[in-house]
Amino acid sequence: MKKFLNSPETLLAESLAGLAGAHSDILKLGSDGRYVCRRQPVAGKVALISGGGAGHEPLHAGFVGLGMLDAACPGQVFTSPTPDQMLAAIAAVDGGAGVLFIVKNYAGDVMNFEMSAEMASEMAAAGSELEILTVLTNDDVAVEESTWSSGRRGVAGTLVVEKLLGAAAEQGMGLADLKALGDRTNSLTRTMGVALSSCTVPAAGTPTFNLGEAEIEMGVGIHGEPGRRRQAFTSADAITDELLQAICDDLAAAGLEPGDILLFINGFGGTPLMELHLLYNAARHRLEQRGFRVQRSLVGSYVTSLEMAGASITVSLLDGQALRLWDAPVHTAALRWGC
Amino acid sequence: MKKFLNSPETLLAESLAGLAGAHSDILKLGSDGRYVCRRQPVAGKVALISGGGAGHEPLHAGFVGLGMLDAACPGQVFTSPTPDQMLAAIAAVDGGAGVLFIVKNYAGDVMNFEMSAEMASEMAAAGSELEILTVLTNDDVAVEESTWSSGRRGVAGTLVVEKLLGAAAEQGMGLADLKALGDRTNSLTRTMGVALSSCTVPAAGTPTFNLGEAEIEMGVGIHGEPGRRRQAFTSADAITDELLQAICDDLAAAGLEPGDILLFINGFGGTPLMELHLLYNAARHRLEQRGFRVQRSLVGSYVTSLEMAGASITVSLLDGQALRLWDAPVHTAALRWGC
Repeated sequence: MKKFLNSPETLLAESLAGLAGAHSDILKLGSDGRYVCRRQPVAGKVALISGGGAGHEPLHAGFVGLGMLDAACPGQVFTSPTPDQMLAAIAAVDGGAGVLFIVKNYAGDVMNFEMSAEMASEMAAAGSELEILTVLTNDDVAVEESTWSSGRRGVAGTLVVEKLLGAAAEQGMGLADLKALGDRTNSLTRTMGVALSSCTVPAAGTPTFNLGEAEIEMGVGIHGEPGRRRQAFTSADAITDELLQAICDDLAAAGLEPGDILLFINGFGGTPLMELHLLYNAARHRLEQRGFRVQRSLVGSYVTSLEMAGASITVSLLDGQALRLWDAPVHTAALRWGC
Repeated sequence: MKKFLNSPETLLAESLAGLAGAHSDILKLGSDGRYVCRRQPVAGKVALISGGGAGHEPLHAGFVGLGMLDAACPGQVFTSPTPDQMLAAIAAVDGGAGVLFIVKNYAGDVMNFEMSAEMASEMAAAGSELEILTVLTNDDVAVEESTWSSGRRGVAGTLVVEKLLGAAAEQGMGLADLKALGDRTNSLTRTMGVALSSCTVPAAGTPTFNLGEAEIEMGVGIHGEPGRRRQAFTSADAITDELLQAICDDLAAAGLEPGDILLFINGFGGTPLMELHLLYNAARHRLEQRGFRVQRSLVGSYVTSLEMAGASITVSLLDGQALRLWDAPVHTAALRWGC
């Protein structure tokens, strides 16, 4: 295992210190690195908090800032953050209008965010009111059950949920409406990915799974969990066909018709931009042939699996309101426009 | 070799089509994909044109747009663009105030940009005036001579030159002053990189070089050219020490004192952001101990070598004018702020 690190134990802390140092205009580190939060809390605004295991950078800490998250709680690599981290983040960013958790559907994350919500409510029960709601993302169409999840996994589509809710919260939307918008956005978003290589968790030191020289994992999870099947490596066009077939079948099964979409090609960390743009080109033509209208695009490595070679395709149906929220100003380490 | 592609022959064209499709608000593809240029040429502004072999994405095409380049000419992977590409780009973006080439110091690039400048001058000689000047970047301190270069190589520091000149051109700076600013910026910028893995050129199909399980290439070039030496893999701190020692020795040898800097940690394509942030943290502390003041920061994979695992550190001394130019609005596929 060759990685830029000093020890697996200090990797997360050193990396967060670097993130905070490079983006000190946007964010700061909470005590003991338990959370990353916006430079200034915003009074009267619903606070959006997400989090999860590290190793998916820039998700989530890279999405903290104006127009997106108020705080992110990073666990160790591929390990859920603990409830005390979320409690500390709440204390830092609660602006008095309630807190919305955005949680990817993995058993550990769901449990720990739930536990922190209960603990926060109990602590607040004495006097002040604190309402916490949760949006669970589960956009991955690959499998219904997986290594660390009951039900579908939350993957790259989480970025879309965080962007739209971040913009809406900035504009003053209330907690209940944000929860409804988040659930709706998640329900209109579908993702499927494929791995060309494994990744290596630093604390383990060996690849999470083994792929042959000419094999790919179709439907892989963002922790290297098994997908639909191991199959022979093939052309980018054939891979794109298979990913889109799964996504379009799933949209159709939910009664969702082709319409205006955000097309998001996400790299898993080890795949260069040149290949991601090629995938975008292939996916766009195919989606247009199926009657989808690509209104917005995002191409890059945003929801990663350490250094895994591979990519996912996300299709998110966006109505006029959603398009405006996507376009709204955002100023984070990883996404920045309009300001 | 597992990559997302349909054939090595069509990789570049398909990837450029994807880039143009995903960023049609910013840029467009010239005929036959010979160049990428801004959506609208700007009359009365010096046109900045760069280019070079593909495989370094987002450099250069991802830096085309407001506040940076007017056009980029991409060759095939690790192969220089041909003079006809630059001629076509000039015709598309010449705004009547002259053209500035920004060229990384590689023999093929230098020759083909020179040839296109001569051809363009001859074609223009009949009537209209067309002045073309060139800024050559050679920020890589690793080696004095290399596989494809006579003299030092132009690497990640090229981004800094393109950003500052792009901002200055946008503000109306004339051709001669831009050339002087570019030369000066290059002379105040130093980079050194290290590879943890090789990369594979698609048309070759096998790794460009072979590294052992516990070896790294210190001072590697962005095409996988040899650096200073092959050595044993070690900690991120030790690697950072060595890269910075080379950079600081070189600055000192040129009589340049520690001052305000941009610290740019650049990934080569296969190294995740989490590790780049860790490197940033290590480099920043060390530079501050040496008396440098980190005024601006950039962390990400911007000047890549396909899927190579590795990174480079760039230190660029920035005075007040340079800081303002760095902060000026930029709207490209890969860098975007202030608009």
